[in-house]
Amino acid sequence: MPRGAHPSPSPRVRVRRLPERARYGREAVAAVLDAGLVAHLGLVSEGQPYVIPTLHARVGEFVYVHGSAASRTLRTLRGGVPACLTVTLLDGIVLARSVFEHSMNYRSVVVLGTAAPVEEPDEKLVALEAFTEKLLPGRWGEARPPTRKELGATSILRLPLDEASAKIRDGGPDDSDTPDAELDVWAGHLPLVVQALEPVPDAVLRPGIPLPPGLDPYRRPGLVE
Amino acid sequence: MPRGAHPSPSPRVRVRRLPERARYGREAVAAVLDAGLVAHLGLVSEGQPYVIPTLHARVGEFVYVHGSAASRTLRTLRGGVPACLTVTLLDGIVLARSVFEHSMNYRSVVVLGTAAPVEEPDEKLVALEAFTEKLLPGRWGEARPPTRKELGATSILRLPLDEASAKIRDGGPDDSDTPDAELDVWAGHLPLVVQALEPVPDAVLRPGIPLPPGLDPYRRPGLVE
Repeated sequence: MPRGAHPSPSPRVRVRRLPERARYGREAVAAVLDAGLVAHLGLVSEGQPYVIPTLHARVGEFVYVHGSAASRTLRTLRGGVPACLTVTLLDGIVLARSVFEHSMNYRSVVVLGTAAPVEEPDEKLVALEAFTEKLLPGRWGEARPPTRKELGATSILRLPLDEASAKIRDGGPDDSDTPDAELDVWAGHLPLVVQALEPVPDAVLRPGIPLPPGLDPYRRPGLVE
Repeated sequence: MPRGAHPSPSPRVRVRRLPERARYGREAVAAVLDAGLVAHLGLVSEGQPYVIPTLHARVGEFVYVHGSAASRTLRTLRGGVPACLTVTLLDGIVLARSVFEHSMNYRSVVVLGTAAPVEEPDEKLVALEAFTEKLLPGRWGEARPPTRKELGATSILRLPLDEASAKIRDGGPDDSDTPDAELDVWAGHLPLVVQALEPVPDAVLRPGIPLPPGLDPYRRPGLVE
């Protein structure tokens, strides 16, 4: 079976609550991972879960995360640890006639697997390029490349996308075909979008340096213009 | 010591990486929790961490989360389980002269503790009111209240804020006083904001129902107008 085809989800990532919102296709998973700028990485240390916000980037059938924030847990576990990486994009607020049916519109992905440290400098560079290009398309060719020392100080984790599911909710409230629809209560949804403001130059930016083309204007999936 | 004073953080929530970004005061923690519309809840089941996006609301020195998504883990654990609740607000992209110094601006809070199911109907109502008012100020007085059956079907978890820390990064890149500042590379930061678009009425909304005052315009911490 080709990696990432996900024809039937593993029991661990199968969406049990509101399964009609689930997506298991690789394209749905990839689209949410690519649109999200921040991931939440879950790890366990002595029975205690830790959830760390971190930058992530998908490269083919893997997702990379910056591992420095997780160093407390990973310092001694070179072989990798069970992890859960979750990316959530909030798309709106769902206002139903009843308190009970209030909800949010969102796209989310949950990836389960073993997070392993990336050791090879070449693979670290692949991940750093993906992080950098994700933050700003074209940036990898503009910014100073990492030195050998910086590369050594960079901790990166890799997680395969074998076990992943996406969940999407959109549109209005679910009470339109219930007796609640007769109530004298406004119902609908409020879309939320992420927007980039004007770039702010560094206070000591040397004069005469033009804005990178990728910032003029800034475009990426998940952002409105 | 008064609950929530956090004069010295527990070792588990003490920020080790870049400690200058840490905040332990209750106001800093509350401000981030209140501004965030979505939390990521970490739980452990058979050694595997799960990170679930969920609505949360702070009420005094507790934070409540919708527990239905976590039912797989919590079904049999009435006494509560070790949990980690993380809220992250992404505020921008930091573009340094070097790849290595690229970063994000953010506000985040990590809460560690025991997530326990809320059993008392009165406390469930307190939490539901907080969820509803968080989504839309004034909504608790507009929407149909929960029936006894709906209340019974609502799963809510409570987590104390005793062990919590906030982390904040803002402003431009950290390379302004390094040799990199001489490079011919644009540097600065790109602020990101969340914005509400126009409310979308439900397709079968009865005619003549006015927009709630809270949507005209919609205002809450964390959103630009």
